Amino acid sequence: MIDNNSGDYMKTIEIKDDSVIILDQTLLPGEVKYIECGDIECIAQAIIRLSIRGAPALGIAGAFSLALTALQNPKSGREEIIGKLKETYEHIKKTRPTAVNLVWAMDRIMGKLESSKNIQETVFKEAMRIYEEDFRINKKMGDFGSEIIDDGDTILTHCNAGGLATGGYGTALGVIVSAKNKGKNVKVFADETRPLLQGDRLTAFEMVREDIPVTVITDSMAAFSMKNFDIKKVVVGADRIAANGDTANKIGTYGVAILAKEHGIPFYVAAPLSTIDRNTPTGEDIPIEFRNREEIEFFNGKRVVPTDAEIKNPAFDVTPAKYITGIITEMGILKAPFIKNIKKAFEEKEG
Amino acid sequence: MIDNNSGDYMKTIEIKDDSVIILDQTLLPGEVKYIECGDIECIAQAIIRLSIRGAPALGIAGAFSLALTALQNPKSGREEIIGKLKETYEHIKKTRPTAVNLVWAMDRIMGKLESSKNIQETVFKEAMRIYEEDFRINKKMGDFGSEIIDDGDTILTHCNAGGLATGGYGTALGVIVSAKNKGKNVKVFADETRPLLQGDRLTAFEMVREDIPVTVITDSMAAFSMKNFDIKKVVVGADRIAANGDTANKIGTYGVAILAKEHGIPFYVAAPLSTIDRNTPTGEDIPIEFRNREEIEFFNGKRVVPTDAEIKNPAFDVTPAKYITGIITEMGILKAPFIKNIKKAFEEKEG
Repeated sequence: MIDNNSGDYMKTIEIKDDSVIILDQTLLPGEVKYIECGDIECIAQAIIRLSIRGAPALGIAGAFSLALTALQNPKSGREEIIGKLKETYEHIKKTRPTAVNLVWAMDRIMGKLESSKNIQETVFKEAMRIYEEDFRINKKMGDFGSEIIDDGDTILTHCNAGGLATGGYGTALGVIVSAKNKGKNVKVFADETRPLLQGDRLTAFEMVREDIPVTVITDSMAAFSMKNFDIKKVVVGADRIAANGDTANKIGTYGVAILAKEHGIPFYVAAPLSTIDRNTPTGEDIPIEFRNREEIEFFNGKRVVPTDAEIKNPAFDVTPAKYITGIITEMGILKAPFIKNIKKAFEEKEG
Repeated sequence: MIDNNSGDYMKTIEIKDDSVIILDQTLLPGEVKYIECGDIECIAQAIIRLSIRGAPALGIAGAFSLALTALQNPKSGREEIIGKLKETYEHIKKTRPTAVNLVWAMDRIMGKLESSKNIQETVFKEAMRIYEEDFRINKKMGDFGSEIIDDGDTILTHCNAGGLATGGYGTALGVIVSAKNKGKNVKVFADETRPLLQGDRLTAFEMVREDIPVTVITDSMAAFSMKNFDIKKVVVGADRIAANGDTANKIGTYGVAILAKEHGIPFYVAAPLSTIDRNTPTGEDIPIEFRNREEIEFFNGKRVVPTDAEIKNPAFDVTPAKYITGIITEMGILKAPFIKNIKKAFEEKEG
């Protein structure tokens, strides 16, 4: 364990000295501790346990898993290293099914291998490129997204789409930070986000660090807050966006979107194009991860649900595109018709 | 502490030997323990701490507070005992502002004093009458309400409106139990109900005891469940219903009502007429209790929200009548227009 909490942004993940170093977000806000992973199974467990989470951060974790494999096998020949990379790919891919960035990042690296002369170098360089791009892309999204925020706005968000969910700047919270940096007064309402309280532990924590006023509510208080506390916009992140704009994000997001519509509040998703999966036609096609019952059954170690009760624990839900005012990306804010405008954004990006 | 968990219904509250005995619901489902209150401050604290909660049960707690005062002062003269009863009334009235049954029950008793020859006897008898009526009224509501439930239905509920929220049968859960007793297969989805988890700890606990299949979800999973788990109806209790049908109930109910509307799912409130306050014209006039931040800030003793984050903790919200399909009462199921039909129900009851 390494204690390291310096610099403007808390490092979510980094690679150094043949290790991948991961901030253990399950311990926040109480403890800032890093896990030093010397092997792929350690990274896989950190992902499964949600020590690292958030679609963009998972993309980097996938990239760094391949980079670690490359770093640890400098002498392997071409076929051998490709075999080892494929093993890592399959190992990591299985950890979480919903967030698409994990596979997106690994596919991007694996796609470079055929034309590569030095596999190890190619993998490492591409992984670092993904990491560095993430920050730049987040900043761009922040710039575009800050335009939707007016001076004095109160913004409701769900789960955590901040620096901790990315390589270091944030998607939904990056938009809020950018608005603040442009001199706008902005306040945040953070849904606590059951069962694992990413809103309390991570979003409130990040907003306090950024000196942005933040109010924590339980998820069940979102409707009351929209009616009584003058919420002006909702901005959330995404784990996977289908080609038609349907958006998978942390469980509860779909409900928040319906409540926003009923209160006439614009609902925005902030996500890089890498979260948009054009191979997934609609939200119906997004696999939803169900997690174990213990996350709900016990409350900080104490049983709160009787043994004989069934428990459902879907980790994500899908918000149909019709509830989404706009998707804030590094190519601008995409609006309906999403199929067409998503396609256009990719064409522009790919040049 | 008395350990007493026999009989078909777990006793929420009873009066015996100069004491009011209250089941400490904060310890459920882990422990079944009773608090023996020999004085009014003990009852007031049990109410504030939510050892006893639920509008009908609070009505009985109010009635028993006055009865205890009468029992403990058998020799007091007319003026002296009325003075002491008024003290108890004011003491208990202050504990919780939203649920109207607390004041309703005490007003009903106090209204009998002027014409009473034996104040102590009048108070005790009227308190016992309120207690006994509660069970009969709940059973009647169950009978009427069971008609809305079809064989095979899955019903979603929020918070706990079961035997534990009443003198022993339940309002919303009483409807479900009655349907089951009529031979209908019924399943329950219970929102866990943050911050104090009445859904996990009390509703799931009661349904398991009644042998009714129950699935626990976090509040944030209600929308997902409506979309994916074939929820047929929502039935909830109420803490105060205004003359126009607007209904205050546990925080989160308003959101559930909006989600139900969006999914085309009927939304019912089950409550005795004593929960309808004709002196409260609309939901805007219902005072909402805000509770302390610690209920959200700490998770079973562990800090989860940073000290510098603000926290809002409204205990109730108001569901406008337009979202309510029907109000299940002991006089039948009231439908829109609520102002007229509520008035009619009272006239029939009082007539």
